Amino acid sequence: MFIDRLIENIRIKNNPTVAGLDPKLEYVPAFIRNKYLEQYGINAKGAAEAILEFNKRIIDALYDIIPAVKPQLAYYEMYGCEGIRVFDETVKYAKSKGLIVIADAKRGDIGATAEAYSAAYLGATKLNDEIEQSYFDADALTVNPYLGIDGIKPFLNDCMKYNKGIFILVKTSNKSSGQLQDLATEDGKRIYEIMAEYVDEWGKELIGKYGYSSVGAVVGATYPQQAKIIREKLKNAYILVPGYGAQGGTAADAANSFNSDGLGAIVNASRSIMCAYKSERWKDKYSEIEFAEASRAEAMRMRDELNEAIKNK
Amino acid sequence: MFIDRLIENIRIKNNPTVAGLDPKLEYVPAFIRNKYLEQYGINAKGAAEAILEFNKRIIDALYDIIPAVKPQLAYYEMYGCEGIRVFDETVKYAKSKGLIVIADAKRGDIGATAEAYSAAYLGATKLNDEIEQSYFDADALTVNPYLGIDGIKPFLNDCMKYNKGIFILVKTSNKSSGQLQDLATEDGKRIYEIMAEYVDEWGKELIGKYGYSSVGAVVGATYPQQAKIIREKLKNAYILVPGYGAQGGTAADAANSFNSDGLGAIVNASRSIMCAYKSERWKDKYSEIEFAEASRAEAMRMRDELNEAIKNK
Repeated sequence: MFIDRLIENIRIKNNPTVAGLDPKLEYVPAFIRNKYLEQYGINAKGAAEAILEFNKRIIDALYDIIPAVKPQLAYYEMYGCEGIRVFDETVKYAKSKGLIVIADAKRGDIGATAEAYSAAYLGATKLNDEIEQSYFDADALTVNPYLGIDGIKPFLNDCMKYNKGIFILVKTSNKSSGQLQDLATEDGKRIYEIMAEYVDEWGKELIGKYGYSSVGAVVGATYPQQAKIIREKLKNAYILVPGYGAQGGTAADAANSFNSDGLGAIVNASRSIMCAYKSERWKDKYSEIEFAEASRAEAMRMRDELNEAIKNK
Repeated sequence: MFIDRLIENIRIKNNPTVAGLDPKLEYVPAFIRNKYLEQYGINAKGAAEAILEFNKRIIDALYDIIPAVKPQLAYYEMYGCEGIRVFDETVKYAKSKGLIVIADAKRGDIGATAEAYSAAYLGATKLNDEIEQSYFDADALTVNPYLGIDGIKPFLNDCMKYNKGIFILVKTSNKSSGQLQDLATEDGKRIYEIMAEYVDEWGKELIGKYGYSSVGAVVGATYPQQAKIIREKLKNAYILVPGYGAQGGTAADAANSFNSDGLGAIVNASRSIMCAYKSERWKDKYSEIEFAEASRAEAMRMRDELNEAIKNK
């Protein structure tokens, strides 16, 4: 089961962190960026190759201390076909290093189309009556629930069949997330509470040996009060927590998404890890050439800070 | 402005239809499918090339009678990088034939990430201080509103800057769309009504010369009563109507999304046009070899049926 593998990886590394791989070209250190833009020209190929080296070196620096990575599709799609190819290579490379890969794509559509998305990222595509092939083949995918269960069901089927997972948006980390998600319904419940209830219900066939489901929820660290409510409501769902670090969520905020067993959540940091070499905290200690060491130092710092906050909560 | 171009194209063709290009490999006639799977092997490349020929031949058969096409990203992503390449080539080919291209991707994310998605499909990606390039470069994109305005704003900016459009999910065509979208809030409004109000508000800076905005709404033909309510509520938004044909929506149902000026909506049909050659209605008249002619016949039939329903409503 996906969720068992995730929990075991978190325990082995003693680290509930997922490193977001959202590699805008401007995040890539100039010496790598320039090398490829000179080699291939100022185009998608040059940008994509620069991003791939950046990703691989960050993965090399992190794979023994973190359990998972979360590449965000948008940052690959923005470089067109070349970007997608590098997304694919990043997924494969991270998996080859023992990392769990959560593809952050927030897909959501009607049933037949959700089936196609699920085939793309979790399951496999049928080419004829006998042959199916997996293409992007991540371990888990983020999913948008606006369309209801029809748009979720195909992912559940593939989670079952291929041992994969999904994380469904419940309360997102951005400022305007309340515009829809905080609306109170006529029976007094907020939309994010209703979605949390659905997540638990949709995930009940996928509960693994540690009592958690392969169907998780996304709840931003930037909303610690709502996170507390959601954590209490969710019986079996693991929570993927964005919004820590660059977006303003603290370790104490993120700790609200954990249970007293020290499990129940995995906290994402993207920019604060990828761009650690540019940060106030690390820029004097590490040069641009040492960007990957800076990412490692930040990931270790974050791990310790999170573990402390979880223990003290 | 996107919306003016769309309306002018609809008027020139006298046809408010968009043909969905959702080409599952099993939709492609066997003589095309086998040709490429034999040439390239049973793999993504073979599948993608088969789909590309299928798409091009359907576009060739339709471009003089329809105003727009709507490729659904999921059906390209499911064939991996090769599928994405064929999506890209399909967009370019359709545009070269004068068709407006609505990329149906239902993207939605926090601001910084929505910016990346917008760069990918509507705007352009910065490669350095001077150079930006457009990759997928559709005319419009479907967008998911679960994250609120933060996730919409970057698309609005690009709609303005690059003359593009978006269609925001309001009431989707699938069976379970009511699970979230029909919930009544404490002030008595349904979620789809609230989202419709947002669509109008978000689109008010992008109103073109015919009084419609480049920010539209997605409202399924399968919910004609809700469509009537939403149409009355939306002052300026064009409605993209999925759910006609294979999903069960009729021309009379779809007509509810139109205004008395005969404008205000564009109706999508995917399977009923792409697979016309397999349908009860056309399969005796056209052989598999003549699949494109069958698609053309179905598109003409749909045009006439829709125009009649709009006139009589």
